[in-house]
Amino acid sequence: MRAEGVKTDPNYPIPETMKAWVLGDPDQLTLADKPVPTPKKAEVLVRIDAVAICATDLEIIHKGPPAQIQGGLPFNKNFTPGHEYMGTVVALGPGVDEYRIGQRVTVEIHAGCGQCKRCREGMYTACHNYGLNYGDRDKGHRANGFTTDGGFAEYAVNNINTLVPVADTMSDEEATLVVTAGTAMYGLTELGGLVAGESVAVLGPGPIGLLGVAVAKALGAQPVILTGTRDNRLEMGLELGADHVINVRKESDVVGKVRELTGGKGLDYVVECSGAPDAINEAARMLNRGGKICLAAFPHEPTPIDVAYLVRNNIYLYGIRGEGKSATHRAEAFMAQKRFDATKIHTHTFPLQDLPTALKYARERIEDAIKVVVKTRSTEAHRIAAE
Amino acid sequence: MRAEGVKTDPNYPIPETMKAWVLGDPDQLTLADKPVPTPKKAEVLVRIDAVAICATDLEIIHKGPPAQIQGGLPFNKNFTPGHEYMGTVVALGPGVDEYRIGQRVTVEIHAGCGQCKRCREGMYTACHNYGLNYGDRDKGHRANGFTTDGGFAEYAVNNINTLVPVADTMSDEEATLVVTAGTAMYGLTELGGLVAGESVAVLGPGPIGLLGVAVAKALGAQPVILTGTRDNRLEMGLELGADHVINVRKESDVVGKVRELTGGKGLDYVVECSGAPDAINEAARMLNRGGKICLAAFPHEPTPIDVAYLVRNNIYLYGIRGEGKSATHRAEAFMAQKRFDATKIHTHTFPLQDLPTALKYARERIEDAIKVVVKTRSTEAHRIAAE
Amino acid sequence: MRAEGVKTDPNYPIPETMKAWVLGDPDQLTLADKPVPTPKKAEVLVRIDAVAICATDLEIIHKGPPAQIQGGLPFNKNFTPGHEYMGTVVALGPGVDEYRIGQRVTVEIHAGCGQCKRCREGMYTACHNYGLNYGDRDKGHRANGFTTDGGFAEYAVNNINTLVPVADTMSDEEATLVVTAGTAMYGLTELGGLVAGESVAVLGPGPIGLLGVAVAKALGAQPVILTGTRDNRLEMGLELGADHVINVRKESDVVGKVRELTGGKGLDYVVECSGAPDAINEAARMLNRGGKICLAAFPHEPTPIDVAYLVRNNIYLYGIRGEGKSATHRAEAFMAQKRFDATKIHTHTFPLQDLPTALKYARERIEDAIKVVVKTRSTEAHRIAAE
Amino acid sequence: MRAEGVKTDPNYPIPETMKAWVLGDPDQLTLADKPVPTPKKAEVLVRIDAVAICATDLEIIHKGPPAQIQGGLPFNKNFTPGHEYMGTVVALGPGVDEYRIGQRVTVEIHAGCGQCKRCREGMYTACHNYGLNYGDRDKGHRANGFTTDGGFAEYAVNNINTLVPVADTMSDEEATLVVTAGTAMYGLTELGGLVAGESVAVLGPGPIGLLGVAVAKALGAQPVILTGTRDNRLEMGLELGADHVINVRKESDVVGKVRELTGGKGLDYVVECSGAPDAINEAARMLNRGGKICLAAFPHEPTPIDVAYLVRNNIYLYGIRGEGKSATHRAEAFMAQKRFDATKIHTHTFPLQDLPTALKYARERIEDAIKVVVKTRSTEAHRIAAE
Repeated sequence: MRAEGVKTDPNYPIPETMKAWVLGDPDQLTLADKPVPTPKKAEVLVRIDAVAICATDLEIIHKGPPAQIQGGLPFNKNFTPGHEYMGTVVALGPGVDEYRIGQRVTVEIHAGCGQCKRCREGMYTACHNYGLNYGDRDKGHRANGFTTDGGFAEYAVNNINTLVPVADTMSDEEATLVVTAGTAMYGLTELGGLVAGESVAVLGPGPIGLLGVAVAKALGAQPVILTGTRDNRLEMGLELGADHVINVRKESDVVGKVRELTGGKGLDYVVECSGAPDAINEAARMLNRGGKICLAAFPHEPTPIDVAYLVRNNIYLYGIRGEGKSATHRAEAFMAQKRFDATKIHTHTFPLQDLPTALKYARERIEDAIKVVVKTRSTEAHRIAAE
Repeated sequence: MRAEGVKTDPNYPIPETMKAWVLGDPDQLTLADKPVPTPKKAEVLVRIDAVAICATDLEIIHKGPPAQIQGGLPFNKNFTPGHEYMGTVVALGPGVDEYRIGQRVTVEIHAGCGQCKRCREGMYTACHNYGLNYGDRDKGHRANGFTTDGGFAEYAVNNINTLVPVADTMSDEEATLVVTAGTAMYGLTELGGLVAGESVAVLGPGPIGLLGVAVAKALGAQPVILTGTRDNRLEMGLELGADHVINVRKESDVVGKVRELTGGKGLDYVVECSGAPDAINEAARMLNRGGKICLAAFPHEPTPIDVAYLVRNNIYLYGIRGEGKSATHRAEAFMAQKRFDATKIHTHTFPLQDLPTALKYARERIEDAIKVVVKTRSTEAHRIAAE
Repeated sequence: MRAEGVKTDPNYPIPETMKAWVLGDPDQLTLADKPVPTPKKAEVLVRIDAVAICATDLEIIHKGPPAQIQGGLPFNKNFTPGHEYMGTVVALGPGVDEYRIGQRVTVEIHAGCGQCKRCREGMYTACHNYGLNYGDRDKGHRANGFTTDGGFAEYAVNNINTLVPVADTMSDEEATLVVTAGTAMYGLTELGGLVAGESVAVLGPGPIGLLGVAVAKALGAQPVILTGTRDNRLEMGLELGADHVINVRKESDVVGKVRELTGGKGLDYVVECSGAPDAINEAARMLNRGGKICLAAFPHEPTPIDVAYLVRNNIYLYGIRGEGKSATHRAEAFMAQKRFDATKIHTHTFPLQDLPTALKYARERIEDAIKVVVKTRSTEAHRIAAE
Repeated sequence: MRAEGVKTDPNYPIPETMKAWVLGDPDQLTLADKPVPTPKKAEVLVRIDAVAICATDLEIIHKGPPAQIQGGLPFNKNFTPGHEYMGTVVALGPGVDEYRIGQRVTVEIHAGCGQCKRCREGMYTACHNYGLNYGDRDKGHRANGFTTDGGFAEYAVNNINTLVPVADTMSDEEATLVVTAGTAMYGLTELGGLVAGESVAVLGPGPIGLLGVAVAKALGAQPVILTGTRDNRLEMGLELGADHVINVRKESDVVGKVRELTGGKGLDYVVECSGAPDAINEAARMLNRGGKICLAAFPHEPTPIDVAYLVRNNIYLYGIRGEGKSATHRAEAFMAQKRFDATKIHTHTFPLQDLPTALKYARERIEDAIKVVVKTRSTEAHRIAAE
């Protein structure tokens, strides 16, 4: 890698080309050779060591990058998806001294443009130049795996704003989960941040929901209630810190049960991760007056909401996009301090060349897969079944 | 009035009984004689000089007090409605020295219990003891005209937390409008408070919407856009400070028009006062990413909302109950400083004995009535038509 | 106890009189018989089980109640000091159903008036009616042990706003420490609340400083640095979660050392608990730009401060009075969840009748006393030396 | 100007070189020819039309750039000072479409790096890479007139983050005052933002103090009190919206007078712009409990502060650096809406070549100069005396 001002280190040799999965027509992923990209100012080159699969990856692969890209970009035919990765810094762009070569890092997704109104107020996940990183309209926004090349590859370039140093005591696999915990942390930040002693319910035990339980408990929430449809997921919620779990298939009056578990008072906060049709109305009725709802799921259809109830009860709702306000740093700090064991949700591991199988496990929840991790650097296929 | 510790003044003689409208079965209002109530600690007796009619009064008279009273109180058969009143302090409860006899005051509605979690954090409009002001369960919450006797009468007792001193330069009629401006102010406070130079749309030119325009402009918002269905209301919005108005019956693409008026950027804030079925989805699409919606209307039915759009665009929604966080004081300050002329929305005046007619004008919007004010102290009927 | 509306329980018999230490002239404490007080609305009677001694108690006993009481109250000759107590609810004032008889509680100090501007915005420790709880000017403010009778006695009346339920797993002695942890929690709340992964230094290893370390760590701060003059106190800081300690007598460049420990970046937050003459200037130089200082100590003299440095570096300072914004509830939640062991700072225990000896231990730091606890209900003298 | 991606317009021809004042040894300013700089990504070239003189310019010219530049930069021998300028956009850096050529703009000073912790949380005036805009350590921070070339010249390059569009109705001279009003606005933002109906005192009627009065009043503060030593300045304060002024040379008990003017309650906010030795202690005693102080002046010496008073009264202090949180945009909005007439503080105008005379007027307050403006484009000397 010979670009002006870029720093490299012979201990971390960088090839000219790399293996990377690229997206063709919907659902067509091919393992290709691509040039290793070069970091510019405020960027580093990351050698990817591990990458986790998120439900949004499955959507992007199936439908193309998210709809909110302005101007309706065409389905990106040479695009590499994957956004929950971690790795090792192997080259520094010009002037970068915030990180050093050899340092292990995990990533958050959004590098805001730094110029728009939202970026200037610290809300970089709501960057007004989202997706504008091409050609003349390159505003510097990057969302690797969404609008710029991501982590189903051997290398990626990252803005330093998207990096989180990883503690030595954290495994590669665990480090891929920081961004998921960071999303839950962001939600709890926007709900008020100070949740010690407050009551929280998490609806939906997917990865964000399960780590939402863990983060809420790490912040001192009490009680933490998890609702879902599958007992083994709820069981995992208990291991991650839930004080109570409710199987909504078995409990006929979930709202009543939640109110009972809070001594009749109702909850302070709900983190809605289920996307279920009536989830928001139920969440509202679980809350006490002045309670708050974090909206972290993407329901496929518009759902009828009793707005008058929200107004009468002074309820606020927060649509959470990604992992803003440096929440990944807070999540990493808690994980490095071993406040919770995020690896409980890591169920399967595959090598990079088996990405299609890994995606299939994630999509079809084979063997109850929760988080499927792809190890970029492993040399032979191995699969770790959920314990 | 002879109660221990209560202070009175011979210049403000207080009779034993007063005229008060009382609610019987739904829609049955009778002008009755009631004892003049006695102020307790932290309370004063207000001689009511004027009271405005709010849409919620019409609902309460038609359906009884709001549904959220815990335990489902029976329809209150001796209850006096009316909550947007102003008047003169004529007696002080024991220990009250924050106000003096003869002082003109207007009111806000909610006196929180002061003990629950929400009251302790300054969110008294979401008091957890709402409506608990009877018998053994008297927690000290009061919401005159909702859960305790209100202002369609000659006198009322008010907790000092619900009083706002009125500037000498403000007429009685204008003072009844402070609480409406205060509701708009509360909404804008929760949306961020700092709205100078920010773009705001108000949907629905009812009283709160119209004063929402005025308050947004007083706070320096720019542009302020008002949408509605009737040109004369929109005209009034222009007089109150709107930079642009849109008649949604004449404009086929309201969202597009709003985006155009903001230079393609979309809005920072929407104050939803229309209750229209698709209002929230339209509001969301008017906003830029990271924008915020104040929910100030009570739609009659659950409405389908595109939650995924809210999540993708980091949109927050605030269900605004009443006029919290001392917003009425801020509204009064702006009105006393003549930043806007709230009296533009005052269209009709009736004497107290003609309350049924006044309610009819308000309900049926006769002569395009907006704010109908009842003058408690006027001795003969007179009606002021909208100019 | 026979007062209208007051609830009692034969399992918790209440005598007519109680033993209470009362203050005469400065430094004159006498064990006297006093009537057991009666709880009013929103109050309970607490049977005191244990009470810790705070440096402010020593000041109050030596100098009378704090100077900021408006109007300059005379030295209160029948006043019972003591404010860090815990106990058992034995009677409920009229209408109280938030607590039950037999429930263990610990206390925070300030019951704001609920009517002033600060109380209405949730800042009840800055109540504008502080100390106004006598006669005609009784505004309902209470600060037991400061302006109303406190805990060096067998019983005390508490406003329910000053109660925190105690987990069964927490000993009486530990429960007396909740308010101290709550003060540290309040400071960290005002500094930003979200301290996971942020760097914090605590200056001064007194009780608030030591629990400040523990609370900062429980919130995920990293690194947490403690400075002080005595190695054994610093040692205790390490046990409570400090990552680094600095003995300011041995380190010639404390500011430099702190900056080194933060990788040259400087700190995000300093909690100043030392009251040392140059502490604030040193704190400012330990911080990075935009850092924040919590002022939790009361220096005896005005100290020269380099204000221009604060301005140039966008530094904010927060004078922390007591334990506001429900911080004791958050502290109790963390302690109940065993996030840190506050009992490490509890060094000595005495029975109520030995209060003078207990105060002497606290004042003179005999056997390096940190927190000295008085057990109101123990029947014979025993002293637990620091381990 | 021929640089790749830079857009120009023949209607706005750009010369190769320009006149610019450059700093040699302290107090040595020379009018030199310099190359017109070229805008890079996210930057524009501004043709300077007018520039106001600030007290900090005088300090920089006398002592070199501010001390807080890391690493102690040598006195910059080819540096152009001046930071309160406005002008016309004449060239756009690559990709800039937020502004158009010919657009009138005024500036704020700080372009944060966009990468450090403070920038990412919206606190760009506290950028951790302040002054790092040279060579290998170029982190992108710019503070024109402080660390990068400023406005005593014909042209300057500005990051788009430092631009504020100017309304057509605003004169060039008025537009130079936006940044001063923006500093006051930033202070009031950090104090709480919602100041309608709150009481504010401004200490010191310099330019920031005078516009602080105007901004506080525009936000609805009441009463607004200004203190100072010169009657003509206080008179100007009255014209800008002060409700009361106090000449501290004539009033023996300023604190008492302020408390009297607030009905004995004390103030909610103080904006300290005087730098007087006892100003902070006096400010603290003017406040009610829980009040807040904005520190906007740079005292030359450390001053003794009664910290215990701050702690006991829950007082917070905010060292305000520059004009953060987009406060200039809010200030411009109010000025464009003619909420106050900032031009009242503009007293003198000189052409660019007479900068030394202009500086002398500002330094020595000749003819009671307040704001002295240099018109870059005027062709002949003219001086406008204070009216």
